[in-house]
Amino acid sequence: MESAILSTVAESVLNLTCGAFSERWHQICLSVGRHADTVAVPWGEAVDPDLVRRALRRKRYEAVTITHNETSTGVLNPLAELARAVREESDALVLVDAVSALGGARVESDDWGTDIVLAGTQKALSVPPGLVCFTLSERAAERAAALPRRGFYTDLLRYRDKHRAGGTITTPAIAQVYALDRQLDRILEEGMENRWRRHRELRAATAAWAAERGFTYPAPEPARSPTVSCLRPPAGVEAPALVAGLAERGFTVGGGYGPWKPETFRIGHMGEVRVADLEALLATIDTLL
Amino acid sequence: MESAILSTVAESVLNLTCGAFSERWHQICLSVGRHADTVAVPWGEAVDPDLVRRALRRKRYEAVTITHNETSTGVLNPLAELARAVREESDALVLVDAVSALGGARVESDDWGTDIVLAGTQKALSVPPGLVCFTLSERAAERAAALPRRGFYTDLLRYRDKHRAGGTITTPAIAQVYALDRQLDRILEEGMENRWRRHRELRAATAAWAAERGFTYPAPEPARSPTVSCLRPPAGVEAPALVAGLAERGFTVGGGYGPWKPETFRIGHMGEVRVADLEALLATIDTLL
Repeated sequence: MESAILSTVAESVLNLTCGAFSERWHQICLSVGRHADTVAVPWGEAVDPDLVRRALRRKRYEAVTITHNETSTGVLNPLAELARAVREESDALVLVDAVSALGGARVESDDWGTDIVLAGTQKALSVPPGLVCFTLSERAAERAAALPRRGFYTDLLRYRDKHRAGGTITTPAIAQVYALDRQLDRILEEGMENRWRRHRELRAATAAWAAERGFTYPAPEPARSPTVSCLRPPAGVEAPALVAGLAERGFTVGGGYGPWKPETFRIGHMGEVRVADLEALLATIDTLL
Repeated sequence: MESAILSTVAESVLNLTCGAFSERWHQICLSVGRHADTVAVPWGEAVDPDLVRRALRRKRYEAVTITHNETSTGVLNPLAELARAVREESDALVLVDAVSALGGARVESDDWGTDIVLAGTQKALSVPPGLVCFTLSERAAERAAALPRRGFYTDLLRYRDKHRAGGTITTPAIAQVYALDRQLDRILEEGMENRWRRHRELRAATAAWAAERGFTYPAPEPARSPTVSCLRPPAGVEAPALVAGLAERGFTVGGGYGPWKPETFRIGHMGEVRVADLEALLATIDTLL
């Protein structure tokens, strides 16, 4: 995220925020001295493309940052519509954090007109952590080439050039490169459409279970993430106690993030999680209610 | 290296250079817009502390960068003497790349007055690549705190603060953290003095073999690294052909670095390499002569 900003933005950027990780884009932009405005919607909501269109009509930005899947609130933003809004209203670059989306939700970097899409491979791609992957559009590369100061290890063109020469600019986490190579084979064997469908089924199975027990989503239905469900327990059930109880029984779920810690918890149903795995977790939650 | 500069240097820095990796400090400083001067000695030599003293008397710098072990030329710089020169002549911070030294050569960050010492754990610590470790002196932390813009993921104080709270600022390469934990136990079992002695023995065994075969060192004797030997083959032996021949026989040695590629090769005898391992390599080189 920081490298994407340093490589493509000289002055001003618009951050679309709806939770902790989209707000991190904003913190990063400020920390490297860029002028950054936000289109901010409340935590739990998805960013409305019309708000973005209006902001872009008021002021020119070199780039717009989007968090595809907002892990802190379990919201999948409408990336295709947001990117289209940016492209139609401006010449700003579309910079996308797809960390917890890629591999679990459709990401069409070319068709949707994104310029940089980055992801950690430890989320829905299910590789041990240690690698980041990213796309770089021709348009973004041209903008980058015109920026005089992109840093050294933060310069995405340096990665691109070395990649084209068949290498990396530093010694990478080699073990994870082998793991990614194997895992990509497994993903192709499953098929992308099947994989995305499985993640939608995981979301649906969680939603059906939640509705029966009185668990509710902060996120409105169409924005609910296929990779992580953020839930509020019913009255009388404390989210932190639930997380602790599951840990004692060998299940890891995420606590609520930041200000949402006391009242929510998050089930990461991504990567190689199957519906049967999820059902075992949900059944264990049932024993704790 | 880039984070160390961004976290502690607002304007000006002095880079001590003697090969490709010490020159990288200089490239990094320029790439992030700092004013950077060099004390440059020819490739293959160690940096002379007296040159550093003279440079520091001419001009004030916020920091001096030192490459402890210059991997490109097989030179171990006299870190203790260089750091002492900097501390006695100035109030500049001492920033040290100890990537290929730590675990194979003595590094006394407190006693020697260094401010930041960084290392990759994949070299003489012998862990699969994916982690960096660093020290941060109180003095460096105070200077950093006074800098208004340290970036986000490049801000070493952010790492320190999160570390004190018992965490990391991002998801780390967790597999390598476990590997490092195990490997540090092995290193402590061997004992630091024993480990440093073993690396000196590896250097000595290489030197004895080289002298008999007419291989020569670009580096003068006292500056020769205990972790990597950079050698020039005798007349009639081509370094790149030697590297290729060893690869065919299952041995990996480093080619010459950058401009030294045609005429040198490098034996990395670091980490868990034992004298018997080295002797097997040297005997294989003998079959290729």
